[in-house]
Amino acid sequence: MQTDITGRLLICCPDRPGIVAGVSQFLYNCGANILDASQHSTDPREGLFFMRMVFQLEKADITREQLEKDFQEKVAGPLKMDWHIDYTDHRKQMAIMVSKYDHCLMELLLRWRSGELPVDIPLVISNHKELQQLTEDFGIPFHYLPVDAGNKAEREQEAIRLIKNVNADFIVLARYMQILSPAFVSVFPQKIINIHHSFLPAFAGANPYKNAYTRGVKLIGATAHYVTNDLDEGPIIDQDVARVSHKHAVSDLVMLGRDIERQVLTRAVVAHIEDRVIVHGNKTIVF
Amino acid sequence: MQTDITGRLLICCPDRPGIVAGVSQFLYNCGANILDASQHSTDPREGLFFMRMVFQLEKADITREQLEKDFQEKVAGPLKMDWHIDYTDHRKQMAIMVSKYDHCLMELLLRWRSGELPVDIPLVISNHKELQQLTEDFGIPFHYLPVDAGNKAEREQEAIRLIKNVNADFIVLARYMQILSPAFVSVFPQKIINIHHSFLPAFAGANPYKNAYTRGVKLIGATAHYVTNDLDEGPIIDQDVARVSHKHAVSDLVMLGRDIERQVLTRAVVAHIEDRVIVHGNKTIVF
Amino acid sequence: MQTDITGRLLICCPDRPGIVAGVSQFLYNCGANILDASQHSTDPREGLFFMRMVFQLEKADITREQLEKDFQEKVAGPLKMDWHIDYTDHRKQMAIMVSKYDHCLMELLLRWRSGELPVDIPLVISNHKELQQLTEDFGIPFHYLPVDAGNKAEREQEAIRLIKNVNADFIVLARYMQILSPAFVSVFPQKIINIHHSFLPAFAGANPYKNAYTRGVKLIGATAHYVTNDLDEGPIIDQDVARVSHKHAVSDLVMLGRDIERQVLTRAVVAHIEDRVIVHGNKTIVF
Amino acid sequence: MQTDITGRLLICCPDRPGIVAGVSQFLYNCGANILDASQHSTDPREGLFFMRMVFQLEKADITREQLEKDFQEKVAGPLKMDWHIDYTDHRKQMAIMVSKYDHCLMELLLRWRSGELPVDIPLVISNHKELQQLTEDFGIPFHYLPVDAGNKAEREQEAIRLIKNVNADFIVLARYMQILSPAFVSVFPQKIINIHHSFLPAFAGANPYKNAYTRGVKLIGATAHYVTNDLDEGPIIDQDVARVSHKHAVSDLVMLGRDIERQVLTRAVVAHIEDRVIVHGNKTIVF
Repeated sequence: MQTDITGRLLICCPDRPGIVAGVSQFLYNCGANILDASQHSTDPREGLFFMRMVFQLEKADITREQLEKDFQEKVAGPLKMDWHIDYTDHRKQMAIMVSKYDHCLMELLLRWRSGELPVDIPLVISNHKELQQLTEDFGIPFHYLPVDAGNKAEREQEAIRLIKNVNADFIVLARYMQILSPAFVSVFPQKIINIHHSFLPAFAGANPYKNAYTRGVKLIGATAHYVTNDLDEGPIIDQDVARVSHKHAVSDLVMLGRDIERQVLTRAVVAHIEDRVIVHGNKTIVF
Repeated sequence: MQTDITGRLLICCPDRPGIVAGVSQFLYNCGANILDASQHSTDPREGLFFMRMVFQLEKADITREQLEKDFQEKVAGPLKMDWHIDYTDHRKQMAIMVSKYDHCLMELLLRWRSGELPVDIPLVISNHKELQQLTEDFGIPFHYLPVDAGNKAEREQEAIRLIKNVNADFIVLARYMQILSPAFVSVFPQKIINIHHSFLPAFAGANPYKNAYTRGVKLIGATAHYVTNDLDEGPIIDQDVARVSHKHAVSDLVMLGRDIERQVLTRAVVAHIEDRVIVHGNKTIVF
Repeated sequence: MQTDITGRLLICCPDRPGIVAGVSQFLYNCGANILDASQHSTDPREGLFFMRMVFQLEKADITREQLEKDFQEKVAGPLKMDWHIDYTDHRKQMAIMVSKYDHCLMELLLRWRSGELPVDIPLVISNHKELQQLTEDFGIPFHYLPVDAGNKAEREQEAIRLIKNVNADFIVLARYMQILSPAFVSVFPQKIINIHHSFLPAFAGANPYKNAYTRGVKLIGATAHYVTNDLDEGPIIDQDVARVSHKHAVSDLVMLGRDIERQVLTRAVVAHIEDRVIVHGNKTIVF
Repeated sequence: MQTDITGRLLICCPDRPGIVAGVSQFLYNCGANILDASQHSTDPREGLFFMRMVFQLEKADITREQLEKDFQEKVAGPLKMDWHIDYTDHRKQMAIMVSKYDHCLMELLLRWRSGELPVDIPLVISNHKELQQLTEDFGIPFHYLPVDAGNKAEREQEAIRLIKNVNADFIVLARYMQILSPAFVSVFPQKIINIHHSFLPAFAGANPYKNAYTRGVKLIGATAHYVTNDLDEGPIIDQDVARVSHKHAVSDLVMLGRDIERQVLTRAVVAHIEDRVIVHGNKTIVF
């Protein structure tokens, strides 16, 4: 194995003594060098333990398959772990869905081109044509799937086929203005990241900037979350806010909000790419 | 009149040309030097104009009474203004109501003692005895008005009497954990500042930190607002947030929240003292 | 004159009573409606007064030339004002100079294309070819002026000719990695905006991120300032910071810094475009 | 041993595989439950590894002395570790030195009284008498050690005696306006926390707010750092900033700065109390 390739082990299991020791001893015995580790224990009544360990396999003469098989037998099985290892030489495939606003899409594409987002972007799907040229200028296939009252289920099935065809690891809704059906969401559990243009749970639903204006808040925000069937209720990955005042019309909030949206979405996408997010119930642990 | 005393003129009127000119020319003719001015126009459909002007009267040989009488006749009347002048040599009287938490009260008392809050604090009213000693250590009268299911209306009347007796200009609820009745609120319209321990409109009502924890937000906040009869719905004066993560238990949120609460409440109180807040409908203009 | 065109009057003069009244009365008499006004007085020893007034001329039957002539005679002359009016129907011409880093250039071009920056960009000048394609994709002329030890003075003269030819109102150094000579700077006083990749005055000079890393600071920053002959010492327009920790290598600081640089540069450029910046000595007043 | 008492192990050693495994296996074998762990590796050329592990000893039947002896023999010795364990049932003794400004002292005392700072404060030393009453109101011994040109060395020796007498674990300079001599500093290496009223390295030395005003910066800051013999050059623990503008006089910066100072100092002191800070060269690792 090559230097610089790292594995990222994510674990969830009942909390008990010996987990860190067991896992780290196992990895050491495999010749893996632990580069980083983070833990989290939920409160004692729930009693769950979460861990992320980053390790290097440079000197291991064990294969990944063997390592994972052994890990299940010797460590994960006895400790009742849900676990998963991702390797950095598997470049994640990131599908993007977008409507007409270009700021979030552009932010992702630019950071992708600059190397900041170590992913491939195999396709962009949109229910509008406005962003086709922009997408294709970056050399990325663009699929136009217009949605109307009658064809939504069908279009979603088409989108699912396209996304599966490219083996996408996750989907980013970069201001995609259609509500995805449970049928769609169920195919990609904890794999769809949405950016909502408010500081959730305030101003869920449509027109958050207008509602923020009407309420007269002094901060507006944006929220990146995993999509579930409860609209705007999914596990929050990241949020941020910006200060506003009586001087700002709704259109100013929209403009200011764009900057927060793209920052928050970027941070959430980076965390997801780096396997730093664990979903637990309706909340996230972001290591 | 003495140097350094300034008047603060607050205006609301239908928007039209000539307001700034009219007001500033009037003040100039009175010998008043304009130190600062801020304006705000609402959108054209509503067509309202708001202004705050700070002026010095050092060289005027006109009395305040005459100035205000002339202003009404020559400027405010013709331009259909709601207006008000406050002078800095009228030291505002700030009443405080508090329950058991000391952090907001302490913040106000310390800033008052250091001279940062140019007010008098003629009394503190509490439904608990816990903060009596603290209050009296600052030389401020403390009134214990315990509230139970049967005596709320009566206690509020007692509080109103006490507050009126000291000619309080405004009331700060520094974590006062009783909901004030419409009867109380109506006596002090736009004169009661509350600190709510969430980023409103998220987590209105009781237990905001617990609800923030349950929802898994990544920022917690606090909101200072004027009290109206709609609980947690009054005009917002200031808000702020702090970053939190999965590591924080509810008790951590409470502790972190204390710091935001006292900062936000302080800023709102200072803005109110300096006559920088105009309430318009359910929103504020904070100059 | 058309609705929605506004004039922005910037004033600096000795502080004395009657300035606001004089100016606003003058504008009123011209049929100009004051939309916004901001003032600033320096401390009494210096005794200077600064003002920005935004006004609409929709109903005026006076020409701009006449208005400005009258203003000089009746108001500015007697009050010893330095003043300047800019009209929003004069679309500012913004020249950009850049080297190899694309993030600041890209930010400006995207915001320009989205309409957020109401300017024309008549040209981009670079001492490298890397950003030619990007620039030309936006339909903007790109001039390649490579600089070496022997030709710097000559290249600067060429740049001056190009910039003057397009009547540029101001120049943005969007990470232009050459130090401009006094000969160049003197042609565009208070017209060159630079983004420095540190929180000045900390880490002036070369390699600020490396120096920030070495010093172990917990915040890194960026500073937008007008260029003077004192390197990194010009009047600061805006600054901001981001939190960092021991985990961040120099390369991480560079990446995080990019986001602050583009935000701070954007805010400074917007303030300049909107005539909200007045330079006073080595400081700025940003209304 | 009692429940809820935790040990905090801090480690620095040459980086190599097996450290996490070795330490966690050792603790597991001792019956210690690992609650939290953080690691940091410096760049490969330097090759150092830092770790903080928090563990519970509730079910261990080994004594602390035995645990530490075994740890040295079996783990720390072979891996060439510098290490240290602190237990939460050792309440740290925090000495405070202060001059005339009360805001930092008050912040520490209030948080101490509210239980936020789990320390004892055995004494406050001051070169002025102004804060004696305040200190004693909190029930804390106050020592007045006035310093003049002739008695500085002597007074420092007296302070050292007082601080040693109460077995202080660390010293907080809560705006102590005397420069400590190398003789003093050498007695408490990495044990003296100072709050400097600027965003270091900007505006080191005296009068930082005045210098910030003169330079026209748009953010002011504060820096908490360990004291070394190089004035204002010690390892930085925490920093923060607040936005300012041309409107703020030096006195406003001082007032705004007070809020940043007390927040930053609090965060640094809490990190120190919780054994989350490791000094490495002139930098800190804050876990």
